[in-house]
Amino acid sequence: MTNLQALFWPKSIALVGASPDKQIIRGRLVEAIGQHPYPGRVYAVSRSHRKINGLACFESIDALPAGVDLAIITIPAEFVPAALEACGDKGIGAAIVISSGFAEEKGDQGSDRQQQLAEIAAHHGIALIGPNAEGFLNTKLNLAATFSPTVSDVEGGLRPAGLNTGGVAVISQSGGIGFSFFHRGRPKALHFSFIVTTGNEATLDVLDMADYLIEDDGTEVILMFVEGVRSPARLLPLAAKAARAGKPIVVAKVGQSEAAADAVTSHTASLAGSSQAYEAVFRHAGIIRGIDSDHMIDVAGAFVYFRDRLPRGHRVGILTPSGGAGAWFADLCEAHGLHVPMLDARTRARIDPLLPEYGTSRNPVDVTAQVIFKVGYAPVLEIMAESDVLDAILVSGSLAHPTYIERDLEQLVKLAEAVDKPVIFCAYTRAHPRAVELLAQAGFPCLTSMPNAARAIAAMADYRAFSESSATTIEVLPEERIRLTGPALDQSVYTEYEAKQHFDAWGIRCPEGSLTRSSAEAAAAAERLGGTVVAKVQSPDIPHKTEAG
Amino acid sequence: MTNLQALFWPKSIALVGASPDKQIIRGRLVEAIGQHPYPGRVYAVSRSHRKINGLACFESIDALPAGVDLAIITIPAEFVPAALEACGDKGIGAAIVISSGFAEEKGDQGSDRQQQLAEIAAHHGIALIGPNAEGFLNTKLNLAATFSPTVSDVEGGLRPAGLNTGGVAVISQSGGIGFSFFHRGRPKALHFSFIVTTGNEATLDVLDMADYLIEDDGTEVILMFVEGVRSPARLLPLAAKAARAGKPIVVAKVGQSEAAADAVTSHTASLAGSSQAYEAVFRHAGIIRGIDSDHMIDVAGAFVYFRDRLPRGHRVGILTPSGGAGAWFADLCEAHGLHVPMLDARTRARIDPLLPEYGTSRNPVDVTAQVIFKVGYAPVLEIMAESDVLDAILVSGSLAHPTYIERDLEQLVKLAEAVDKPVIFCAYTRAHPRAVELLAQAGFPCLTSMPNAARAIAAMADYRAFSESSATTIEVLPEERIRLTGPALDQSVYTEYEAKQHFDAWGIRCPEGSLTRSSAEAAAAAERLGGTVVAKVQSPDIPHKTEAG
Repeated sequence: MTNLQALFWPKSIALVGASPDKQIIRGRLVEAIGQHPYPGRVYAVSRSHRKINGLACFESIDALPAGVDLAIITIPAEFVPAALEACGDKGIGAAIVISSGFAEEKGDQGSDRQQQLAEIAAHHGIALIGPNAEGFLNTKLNLAATFSPTVSDVEGGLRPAGLNTGGVAVISQSGGIGFSFFHRGRPKALHFSFIVTTGNEATLDVLDMADYLIEDDGTEVILMFVEGVRSPARLLPLAAKAARAGKPIVVAKVGQSEAAADAVTSHTASLAGSSQAYEAVFRHAGIIRGIDSDHMIDVAGAFVYFRDRLPRGHRVGILTPSGGAGAWFADLCEAHGLHVPMLDARTRARIDPLLPEYGTSRNPVDVTAQVIFKVGYAPVLEIMAESDVLDAILVSGSLAHPTYIERDLEQLVKLAEAVDKPVIFCAYTRAHPRAVELLAQAGFPCLTSMPNAARAIAAMADYRAFSESSATTIEVLPEERIRLTGPALDQSVYTEYEAKQHFDAWGIRCPEGSLTRSSAEAAAAAERLGGTVVAKVQSPDIPHKTEAG
Repeated sequence: MTNLQALFWPKSIALVGASPDKQIIRGRLVEAIGQHPYPGRVYAVSRSHRKINGLACFESIDALPAGVDLAIITIPAEFVPAALEACGDKGIGAAIVISSGFAEEKGDQGSDRQQQLAEIAAHHGIALIGPNAEGFLNTKLNLAATFSPTVSDVEGGLRPAGLNTGGVAVISQSGGIGFSFFHRGRPKALHFSFIVTTGNEATLDVLDMADYLIEDDGTEVILMFVEGVRSPARLLPLAAKAARAGKPIVVAKVGQSEAAADAVTSHTASLAGSSQAYEAVFRHAGIIRGIDSDHMIDVAGAFVYFRDRLPRGHRVGILTPSGGAGAWFADLCEAHGLHVPMLDARTRARIDPLLPEYGTSRNPVDVTAQVIFKVGYAPVLEIMAESDVLDAILVSGSLAHPTYIERDLEQLVKLAEAVDKPVIFCAYTRAHPRAVELLAQAGFPCLTSMPNAARAIAAMADYRAFSESSATTIEVLPEERIRLTGPALDQSVYTEYEAKQHFDAWGIRCPEGSLTRSSAEAAAAAERLGGTVVAKVQSPDIPHKTEAG
């Protein structure tokens, strides 16, 4: 773990292959690091320059001062093994190899080179990211150790100001996708702790990163983009660790389709094509499945504000000044597994006096634009938040202008502190950046997609249920009994029964169950198992039970 | 139709109840109209002012000059019937009643007043929108006849400059939702022709508006937000008319859930709660079902650029500089009914020389960031567009900066003119506004959601198949034989067989079919029907066939 500390929290960095040319990767890295107030020392290693962007240049790694924590290597592939060796000799504990020209290339030469890197890293105990990686971003350290253009000119800085929420860490095998989460999520006032891209994973892989970041104090939610992992059996103990820490993991696993599986083969030959099996693992381990980046960003946003106040169930209240928006939201909530109950008489009696004749306190609570204008969101929200029939509240507002959020800010801040269930804003117009920022400072996420807001609430409720069930204590046998390689997940669809057999083979215990083929068999099995028994359809032809009716 | 012309293309307008106070609806209307260069005459009717925002004020409707086309009425509800009567006497052909206090209120008084409006409008032949409506926007006329805050301060004007695409018309029973399409879609360089909100629909309803706008030269796609319609039987002939004009209709029909159905009851008692029946009608009539506003805006965007070059099938090519983005997109395409085939050898042989060792021309075509930097998108797109195995092309690009779009603009313009299949850009980062604008000017939509881009292509391919099938000629019996009220759609789920029985009852002919309960029955039915027979599962328990496997 020491060297992961050197990797992610370096006190000094050497840029091996630095260039003043901002049009090329070697120069963009220099620029990215220089743009943000990283407090450590930065050295450049270059044979052709004496000074780059104000940095003193050293002729070789060997010539560097002692005590460098992290080397970021951008020189051509053929020279990388020797450079990494030199880093090891110099006592540098961590390295990122940005350079391409390794296992992602056709032919043996690149693979052989990558194998060399793995051996050098193992020999010297270097924590190595890459090769062919896009680097990482540590926002707390103001360190943009990446050439990604998304970290330049970030309005308002790498972290949104004035936020009290925990951070979101992104771990991605794809550099482009990894940093796209930051680029899309940062303007939503989402606070990212880390963006980590792992490239070819010569040694450290996405699961190693997750293992480290689960323990990071500044990280409360982890988003992962995964093409495939070498040891699927490691997913379950990792998920159990995250569950114990109360840090939800949202994973987009690609490679479901033949085309995608082929596309990822060059990176991760092992597991592409078995996404249904991954899903069985995810469901069992409380891992949330990511649909697309908008969805994952919204789920993360909802969690970081209300991770300690997750919904106790699936019942949502909807507050809106637009009858149309309320009805649409209600439909979308019900379509995503939530329930929109009629409000209780006591709560309605408290809301009704605030409403004009054409409003309604039923649920959706249509307060009409007039009430937002005269009374604001907060007073009605306060009343709704106290209702026993609601587990969470969604506000579907027109946030085209920040006026009403600005005016009610003080009251909203108090509400955010007092409320014991999630209150999530979702703009039906395009949300004004200032409204998003103010809501974030008050303590509320502002999402922009009704379906994703509904999915986020459902995911939070499910996660709470998962956390409170026996599933948190996914029982993992002593490490030596886990067969890390496990049987391959090679079918395209697994039933839960089949998946459990895999878990058994990996040495992971699941709740006992029985596969039956008739109601008589089921009754016998129920008697044998005792207690409450859940019956589930097990057919690979019907992967989504809820959709078969 | 004459009076709908007066309503939507007025040469002069009277604002009945105008006010200089921009904080209230009566004043916001004055401001909205004044902010845009509407070329007609605008008069104010006010007893308390002589001049408002530079407009001459008249003491009464009667005192107005002759020849006013449209009255926009914002006075208190109790005075509206008399004002509408005065409009009729004055020969004003069209009116929008913005005022609330009609059927949306509890009790009989409001409903009675609304009935009065309907009678006055019928008596004088006034084309009436409302009451309780948010007005409309006609971008070609620069007329913002609405108090919606979304039409103020629109960067770049009501219409994006330099576009050759047709327009998108929005028709919504909800004012808030109607204008939210404009607010969310305009920054995506989407060109809206009309936003029309219908409120309580005392006389004209959303179907009347659609009927008119199908004939509007500036409108090529229609988005509708519908809580319920009085005469569902009118949907099919209307859809047939739209299909003949080649103008797709995308409808969000709310009221599926109990909560939403209750929420819309006050507006549209007739049909809430039967959304599955609507869906059966939509499927049959080639109407595209809208999921949320992001989805509808993206589908509209894809159609307006490539309405005359719809995909011949469901085979898509994906071009990307990011392997991860390509794999994710491929998965999402396959999940939404598209196919991502391996490219043919001839096309690959043309692409390969452009790629570095670690790129791939398989499909997704991963050109690597290096090729975008050195060669650009256009040359590879040109080659892909000529492949016989592709019906459409999706470009998953990092558009965080407009650099490469700017540089290749000329070539992209040429490509947009030459290509005979849809080419749709989709940013995996947050798209830079300038990149969106430039792509639009070149002739390409820039979407931001991979699932929605996939859905858009699928909808276009389905729409082409629908247009080319016998379904375009949905056979409608002579008008007198259509029972406009029809049997109520009161089940929550209909099978296709049941839906067809409804169509029969409404006097609308569908392809012949037969419901069978065993394979023997099916064989007999097939023999009787002859030709190619499609077998479909008919069970209300399995509404979505594709999901049951």
